[in-house]
Amino acid sequence: MGIILGANQYGKAEIRVVKIDRDTPRHDIHDLSVTTTLRGDFAAAHRSGNQANVLPTDSQKNTVFAFAKQYGVDQIEDFALDLARHFVETVPAVTSARVGIDAYAWDRVGVAPGEAGHDHAFVRRGQDIRTTAVTVGATEHGPGAWVVSGIKDLVVLKSTGSEFRGFFADRFTTLAETDDRILATSLVASWRYGEPAADWAACHAGIRAVLLDTFAGTHSRALQQTLQAMGTAVLKAHPEVAEIRFAAPNKHHFAADLEPFGLDNPGEVFYAADRPYGLIEATVIREDAPDAGLAWSAGLT
Amino acid sequence: MGIILGANQYGKAEIRVVKIDRDTPRHDIHDLSVTTTLRGDFAAAHRSGNQANVLPTDSQKNTVFAFAKQYGVDQIEDFALDLARHFVETVPAVTSARVGIDAYAWDRVGVAPGEAGHDHAFVRRGQDIRTTAVTVGATEHGPGAWVVSGIKDLVVLKSTGSEFRGFFADRFTTLAETDDRILATSLVASWRYGEPAADWAACHAGIRAVLLDTFAGTHSRALQQTLQAMGTAVLKAHPEVAEIRFAAPNKHHFAADLEPFGLDNPGEVFYAADRPYGLIEATVIREDAPDAGLAWSAGLT
Amino acid sequence: MGIILGANQYGKAEIRVVKIDRDTPRHDIHDLSVTTTLRGDFAAAHRSGNQANVLPTDSQKNTVFAFAKQYGVDQIEDFALDLARHFVETVPAVTSARVGIDAYAWDRVGVAPGEAGHDHAFVRRGQDIRTTAVTVGATEHGPGAWVVSGIKDLVVLKSTGSEFRGFFADRFTTLAETDDRILATSLVASWRYGEPAADWAACHAGIRAVLLDTFAGTHSRALQQTLQAMGTAVLKAHPEVAEIRFAAPNKHHFAADLEPFGLDNPGEVFYAADRPYGLIEATVIREDAPDAGLAWSAGLT
Amino acid sequence: MGIILGANQYGKAEIRVVKIDRDTPRHDIHDLSVTTTLRGDFAAAHRSGNQANVLPTDSQKNTVFAFAKQYGVDQIEDFALDLARHFVETVPAVTSARVGIDAYAWDRVGVAPGEAGHDHAFVRRGQDIRTTAVTVGATEHGPGAWVVSGIKDLVVLKSTGSEFRGFFADRFTTLAETDDRILATSLVASWRYGEPAADWAACHAGIRAVLLDTFAGTHSRALQQTLQAMGTAVLKAHPEVAEIRFAAPNKHHFAADLEPFGLDNPGEVFYAADRPYGLIEATVIREDAPDAGLAWSAGLT
Repeated sequence: MGIILGANQYGKAEIRVVKIDRDTPRHDIHDLSVTTTLRGDFAAAHRSGNQANVLPTDSQKNTVFAFAKQYGVDQIEDFALDLARHFVETVPAVTSARVGIDAYAWDRVGVAPGEAGHDHAFVRRGQDIRTTAVTVGATEHGPGAWVVSGIKDLVVLKSTGSEFRGFFADRFTTLAETDDRILATSLVASWRYGEPAADWAACHAGIRAVLLDTFAGTHSRALQQTLQAMGTAVLKAHPEVAEIRFAAPNKHHFAADLEPFGLDNPGEVFYAADRPYGLIEATVIREDAPDAGLAWSAGLT
Repeated sequence: MGIILGANQYGKAEIRVVKIDRDTPRHDIHDLSVTTTLRGDFAAAHRSGNQANVLPTDSQKNTVFAFAKQYGVDQIEDFALDLARHFVETVPAVTSARVGIDAYAWDRVGVAPGEAGHDHAFVRRGQDIRTTAVTVGATEHGPGAWVVSGIKDLVVLKSTGSEFRGFFADRFTTLAETDDRILATSLVASWRYGEPAADWAACHAGIRAVLLDTFAGTHSRALQQTLQAMGTAVLKAHPEVAEIRFAAPNKHHFAADLEPFGLDNPGEVFYAADRPYGLIEATVIREDAPDAGLAWSAGLT
Repeated sequence: MGIILGANQYGKAEIRVVKIDRDTPRHDIHDLSVTTTLRGDFAAAHRSGNQANVLPTDSQKNTVFAFAKQYGVDQIEDFALDLARHFVETVPAVTSARVGIDAYAWDRVGVAPGEAGHDHAFVRRGQDIRTTAVTVGATEHGPGAWVVSGIKDLVVLKSTGSEFRGFFADRFTTLAETDDRILATSLVASWRYGEPAADWAACHAGIRAVLLDTFAGTHSRALQQTLQAMGTAVLKAHPEVAEIRFAAPNKHHFAADLEPFGLDNPGEVFYAADRPYGLIEATVIREDAPDAGLAWSAGLT
Repeated sequence: MGIILGANQYGKAEIRVVKIDRDTPRHDIHDLSVTTTLRGDFAAAHRSGNQANVLPTDSQKNTVFAFAKQYGVDQIEDFALDLARHFVETVPAVTSARVGIDAYAWDRVGVAPGEAGHDHAFVRRGQDIRTTAVTVGATEHGPGAWVVSGIKDLVVLKSTGSEFRGFFADRFTTLAETDDRILATSLVASWRYGEPAADWAACHAGIRAVLLDTFAGTHSRALQQTLQAMGTAVLKAHPEVAEIRFAAPNKHHFAADLEPFGLDNPGEVFYAADRPYGLIEATVIREDAPDAGLAWSAGLT
């Protein structure tokens, strides 16, 4: 039996494009990292190095810059859809294209309550990052477009209202039960749209608020339970979302042992550990969610 | 229709364990980062925070340390298999377990040709990292165990013998063709074993050598072609390997423009760029490869 | 002539301590990375390994945790002063101690205009980091305590109002002059207090605001000029500050060349480069600033 | 009293230049990160933005590329000296220039004992990095040139032959004494040449070997003692070196507590911790070392 080419894809990763809207003296800034991925008939390139079907990744990069100028990047989901459709429609060998975007937020300098802030000076917000990953292409069920948006690096912490007890214990279990610990995570959440949002940015902001409010408002018996509550709240509030997935590292905060120094430590002083960390992954989905198609297809390894 | 729990898993990530073999004055060192992931019936934890089925990630960490003492970690694939089987066999709720390991290599201090080096002093090699990801559990076709091993951060470069031309050009294409460029990548390769290797470490070393030799020996018309040649060579030389997958960032080296200074630059002085970078992913597989089962199941997002 | 011990110091780096103030149901959080450094008579440890004078770095870590409990960490400058004085006063061999702190800010979840936010749920702000480095000890002029506070990772950008022209050109100069470019930096600023601030946190907030406002309000002919303006404004507004030092990487944003695609690009679409970057360092100081003493003594290499 | 400009400097950081020597079919590769820093009379740029004295950092970058072509980069110390002298001699406002270089080593693919390896295919060694920082300019004592070379990221470990006991204990000391622990560090060493080396690369290789051999061969009662022994051995073996400075993080390896599982752990299984870490800095110097001049002047903050 032979040795053959299997699944493959290629593209340009981490294209750092900054677009300034400057039609008026009051500028807006869009700061993105864009990654393009193309799939299709590139077998000749793999087999013999024949590149006749291969659009250079350099051209993909150029396309991102040109589209930023021509169409703007107001809504990253629309920008990604435009790019993905362009590659599918204009590169003959391409059967599907995926465009991922990380968007970094900036605030205007000098924004006080009731003030408008500076026209063209900005300070990077540096908090969580807004993401999207759009796939356009054909499956066995026909053509489609799938939008997964999300948030990453959302670092949240509760200083009380979290327990951890009643767990399964085996002979390697030494952990003490607790009814009051710090719960902290650097959340990654990705939600798949079942239908387009009327306003992607507003939808993102709404989901972010629901995530934060539910994290804060849920008395936690397990990080799993908190994630389930967060996902359920998002799906209830946002009918356009079919499914949400979480990856939540449990950022352990261990109470410092101050007893040798004659001090008690009732949940006040903690050592924030780096590694290892618990990692909880979970999905909350509608029973009648449409087929995910190519929505979640990312890297091969 | 309801909102339900979908796919989920949890475990302990990046457990940094160092095991010293010191039965004789000539020590050996094993330096690992281990990640455990469990899947199974954890619905109660998600729905209500009931942890009765949940083995704490702290216990998983303890298990790794205890197994390192009891069984040693001579072959990371065997160590991962032992751990994964243990979780499946002893934690009632677990239906499958995945154990990933990164292994960092150390050399003995003072190794000259023909010398044995120091007994207990080591210098970290710091080159590429040996990896494995083992999954044990049940699919619809019955129970199984799958071993994927690999290499990452293998940074290789050819200073000639690489062209890039004859590619598909669209209206956004400005890249010039070249018949002599630098080809460089930081390779990630993961191969799935169709059957156990007689000696995992020897097999890893053999595959690494084949990858390097083929990279060096292939006149490259495309990075895709080079990867295909590398994968094919591995499968030809190693019948125990069913499939190999690559992720290869094209680490661009752009020739510096020295013309303004009256200097030519025939492939001598380059600027090594960070971002963006091309990213090529490819699979080389046997036509009669056994079903991959749970081999490639990693994160959910 | 002999070979002797020269300058030396030691301590514990990056102690990650989180202190929760929980005297009332409305918690406060203090999230720090503390580094201690001791100098003094440790020659015996270097010469023969005799540790009789050496307070273990583990004890230094314990001290940080115990002090967090006993005294709180409300003002990082005071916390650092307390720790540094403690080491100088209680460890006989120590002649001076330096305590550096990075403080990570958290916001309450659910803070809308006019609202108070959640009592014990927080989201990490993730923007710039507040820093301090306090040194207590003796110089040839007698004992003293020096406080340097600062800010790092303050990423700011102006989308217009920045030129770069009239520079010195040699035979390697190819850069075109421009009267409208993006000016962006990830600012590090460190200011030395000539006298203690009445309220360190308020002073930090005030200086941060002055830095931002001056960055925004200065038409820039050079990053150097902008830094000088920022430093001068800080010293004018804050008589307690004797000196301020800046390290400002010039985060280059290059206008994308869209001409090949029939598009102009009047300051709209930029490529944000990683490396190399310009790096401007500058000091603004009062002519009558008191002697800096040990204020700026950090690492040896 | 006025507010004035204090110490200042500027330059281009992290210029990533790769130089291929290809005069014969057997290529050589030089892979560098170069940072230039200029000091002198740039007050006008700070005060008013007048750049007439300022050589753009872009031109500095161009110079590095052009010099790499014209003169090669065989010895990084000589390359840095050439660059620094060029800036001092050709830019009127410059009074001193500092050029720092990190050099990344590559091995030829296919080097077996007795073999020569591939002509133009390389694999990055990835171990420790060779460094230099050269300063050329005038002090109050006249003009000079100073060469500091070094090594960084040299990760070494001893699995026995290291104790830690007899230390000063205060009321915050809980650490147990030990007569057998793992000693590990990621060494940074920088040595100042009192006179030029006949062969910089050979000298670097010789010093690296002395550092490793001494680390391995010294029974350690303290990391301080080990550093002192390493530094002394370097100065004894290399008369051209006037002084050597170390920064050595104590990479803690804590023995895993396996007692709850009925297992002993006599120095076999360790948890490799990330933070916090001890940090030892030390200098070993000749009593008659020449004045250091500008050798150690680096950043301002």
